[in-house]
Amino acid sequence: MSDKVVRPQPRLPKGMRDIDAAEMRDMTAMLGVIRRVYELYGFEPLDTPAFEFSDALGKFLPDADRPNEGVFSFHDEDEEWVSLRYDLTAPLARYVAANFDSLPKPFRRYQAGPVWRNEKPGPGRFRQFMQFDADTVGAAGPAADAEMCMLAADALEALGVPRGGYAVRVNNRKVLDGLMESAGIEPGEAGAGKRLGVLRAIDKLDRVGPAGVEQLLGKGRKDESGDFTKGAELKKKQIERIMAFLAAGLGDVGGLTALASHLSDSPRGLEGVQELAQIETVLRAGGFDADRVKMDATVVRGLEYYTGPVFEAELTFIAQGEDGAPIRFGSVGGGGRYDGLVERFKGVRIPATGFSIGVSRLYAALKALGKLGEDERRGPVIVMVLDRARIEAYQAIVQSLRRAGLRAEMYLGDAGLKAQMKYADKRQAPCVVIQGEDERQRGEAQIKDLIEGRRLSEQIADNVKWREERPAQFSVPMPELVDAVRRVVLRHEA
Amino acid sequence: MSDKVVRPQPRLPKGMRDIDAAEMRDMTAMLGVIRRVYELYGFEPLDTPAFEFSDALGKFLPDADRPNEGVFSFHDEDEEWVSLRYDLTAPLARYVAANFDSLPKPFRRYQAGPVWRNEKPGPGRFRQFMQFDADTVGAAGPAADAEMCMLAADALEALGVPRGGYAVRVNNRKVLDGLMESAGIEPGEAGAGKRLGVLRAIDKLDRVGPAGVEQLLGKGRKDESGDFTKGAELKKKQIERIMAFLAAGLGDVGGLTALASHLSDSPRGLEGVQELAQIETVLRAGGFDADRVKMDATVVRGLEYYTGPVFEAELTFIAQGEDGAPIRFGSVGGGGRYDGLVERFKGVRIPATGFSIGVSRLYAALKALGKLGEDERRGPVIVMVLDRARIEAYQAIVQSLRRAGLRAEMYLGDAGLKAQMKYADKRQAPCVVIQGEDERQRGEAQIKDLIEGRRLSEQIADNVKWREERPAQFSVPMPELVDAVRRVVLRHEA
Repeated sequence: MSDKVVRPQPRLPKGMRDIDAAEMRDMTAMLGVIRRVYELYGFEPLDTPAFEFSDALGKFLPDADRPNEGVFSFHDEDEEWVSLRYDLTAPLARYVAANFDSLPKPFRRYQAGPVWRNEKPGPGRFRQFMQFDADTVGAAGPAADAEMCMLAADALEALGVPRGGYAVRVNNRKVLDGLMESAGIEPGEAGAGKRLGVLRAIDKLDRVGPAGVEQLLGKGRKDESGDFTKGAELKKKQIERIMAFLAAGLGDVGGLTALASHLSDSPRGLEGVQELAQIETVLRAGGFDADRVKMDATVVRGLEYYTGPVFEAELTFIAQGEDGAPIRFGSVGGGGRYDGLVERFKGVRIPATGFSIGVSRLYAALKALGKLGEDERRGPVIVMVLDRARIEAYQAIVQSLRRAGLRAEMYLGDAGLKAQMKYADKRQAPCVVIQGEDERQRGEAQIKDLIEGRRLSEQIADNVKWREERPAQFSVPMPELVDAVRRVVLRHEA
Repeated sequence: MSDKVVRPQPRLPKGMRDIDAAEMRDMTAMLGVIRRVYELYGFEPLDTPAFEFSDALGKFLPDADRPNEGVFSFHDEDEEWVSLRYDLTAPLARYVAANFDSLPKPFRRYQAGPVWRNEKPGPGRFRQFMQFDADTVGAAGPAADAEMCMLAADALEALGVPRGGYAVRVNNRKVLDGLMESAGIEPGEAGAGKRLGVLRAIDKLDRVGPAGVEQLLGKGRKDESGDFTKGAELKKKQIERIMAFLAAGLGDVGGLTALASHLSDSPRGLEGVQELAQIETVLRAGGFDADRVKMDATVVRGLEYYTGPVFEAELTFIAQGEDGAPIRFGSVGGGGRYDGLVERFKGVRIPATGFSIGVSRLYAALKALGKLGEDERRGPVIVMVLDRARIEAYQAIVQSLRRAGLRAEMYLGDAGLKAQMKYADKRQAPCVVIQGEDERQRGEAQIKDLIEGRRLSEQIADNVKWREERPAQFSVPMPELVDAVRRVVLRHEA
């Protein structure tokens, strides 16, 4: 035995965080709203475990430059590798492959839950975050893709994002493939590096603008901090071609016709434009105009498993940060068609399309938008303990409040009255119940309305007068206590 | 490149499972009910990440015989050990230690989420399962312990377990310590092995009965399968003493007085009995009688971190399994006082008490009890696709239904009418909407009520007559479609 005690530090691994009561309440409400929209569209819930065999999950991290990284993995007892899920799509593919025969086709499921990424954390970038996905497996047509975009738009509006404050943008991987074909970038393995470079450059259009993209398509670009990003090193003609396409791809009116003219020598590109046109038709028939869902040939949406249409949902409004600086939220979700993911297991191509909302990021945005009901929250009614020998009596009071459906607790610490009042304030209690010996003998209890009290205290400056008048504090006979507390609580709930 | 393709198997690691739509819906409803009760008691939500530093979580697995095992651990990038949380109490202790100064005291939080145990899986025993905890940190008195028991009872009743169908049983670790002291088992390290053996034997009372416990206190016990469990090898007098205590501990009336008489030579044991008496007083004052919460000196509740009162909630009703055999559900939750857990970090003893509901196990029990609303569930209205060239029209119909708040989807597969009807059945659709060329020209659509149809088909045996009459199928003009669908859906919701 040694006198020296080594204490563990109460710290969290990098990129991990706790979520406090206010955020948890908002998050629960948000998940409920999204769930209602997904249910309305006919999706059914599913849950899968947090970790699975690494080979079953595969390596489909949408944005990982290094496909072997990005995932938390460990050996299970049989010395097989397992990994924490990095998204909800890979587990869905495994689930469908395992249960294919018994599932309805198409199979439509939604799933909400944390995912884990072994990536460098940063401001607003965590290693555990929440996603909320809907997918339709076994539906090849553009209607299934269009529906994902409608779902995304409806979910955002249900959460309080006003129309015009968001955009769901749709592109097709085949369009970008066709563009690169048209620009004369080598097909197959030989041109893979160049194609990746082009996609990365286009993906940065939002952040670096057209001039920046042009640099990234060529030699490279130096950013404000002086860091240099190597470019795709295309020829001048190739760059011009891609830049002209991007200019056309951004147009809203007649956009698809203009797009097709840039891809006239690529059958694959034209197929992609044709699919976009079909999706657009279904969207407009469903009542979703370009102010909600629009075609945009500049959307890249990661680099991995998508095989056709891709979607990106972004918030377009600009909020003010605590320092007054403008905050752009950008992407809060995305998805697309991935016809190859179930094929990995079954050898049969099974068409699938899905959409994923990044709940954690959306939370930050909705909070900045003031769309979360934080201010109306009230803590429990606190029954104060004036005489520790009489806790049974206080306990009886608190249970009578709870039985009446009122959120209530007896003060359970061992501090005095002043600290108890501070505690009630900190818990945002609407009122406290006080019963000292005097009140007990009269068969009464006092109710102190903390919210009204705070309001009045701003009006009454005189301390002596305050104590004499005791505003917002009144006595009630015990049989009327529950009703009187309820009245105070309801008054402040409106 | 090789022609041989090695496909991953779509399998799950041992002890992991998927949760289907019916269970997910029930689970979401259950969590909502428990949350409402915990909120009513004044607890606030908190979430912590799935994994933490292993040293911060500690090794407090309540039932692990081998304290180094039972946990899934791996190295993070800085080569520090991290572990998936094995309960929600260890992360709470870390959270409180890290945020102590800013928290209200007492700090009352609830948390729901999966936990992971690296233990041998078995029937109904999984390696990922859901817990729902409430804890009060910074409250030393018996009122805080009593409240945990009331909370457990109220939560079970809110979930539909009838009074008399469950029992919350309370014991005190000091009582059992006192018993062993009275029985003359060596204190300190020397008697640690024997004490563990005694606690394990008592913990098995439910399963093996008093005679089995007596064997386990002595040489050991051979079970029905022939497996031999080594006993604690106490002397005959010691065994008699413990068996007499257990008999008294099971009594309801005058139980605590009888209990005290068995522990008269142990100050620690008497302190435990005294605490039980205080808890009982608060419970009864709160309106919780012995039919809901009772004192029971035979409750052990794991072996690790509890320092005083321990609680166990069990279902006492017996359900019938699918094979007609009786199923006992036993423990669905438990908890206790753990005054040492935050001390690990801070060096200061901080009293704490909590209760944890084993949601996954409780789900199985409630399902058997028929307390889950499975039968009333209805799938979405299915808009059938008769003419693939007209999907815009079907899409417009389905969106008009959704805008009216009706759960609906357009059939998104590529199969014919018969398969679409089968799909609607499999999805438990209340009705389908059908619009062929004839209906379109008349400006109408057909609604087929699948639930009414199924009922009628059991009455009409004649196939020809059935086809002629088309019962439960009718036409409506398009402007009346949404209202007509709503009437069908509402009719079946009651």
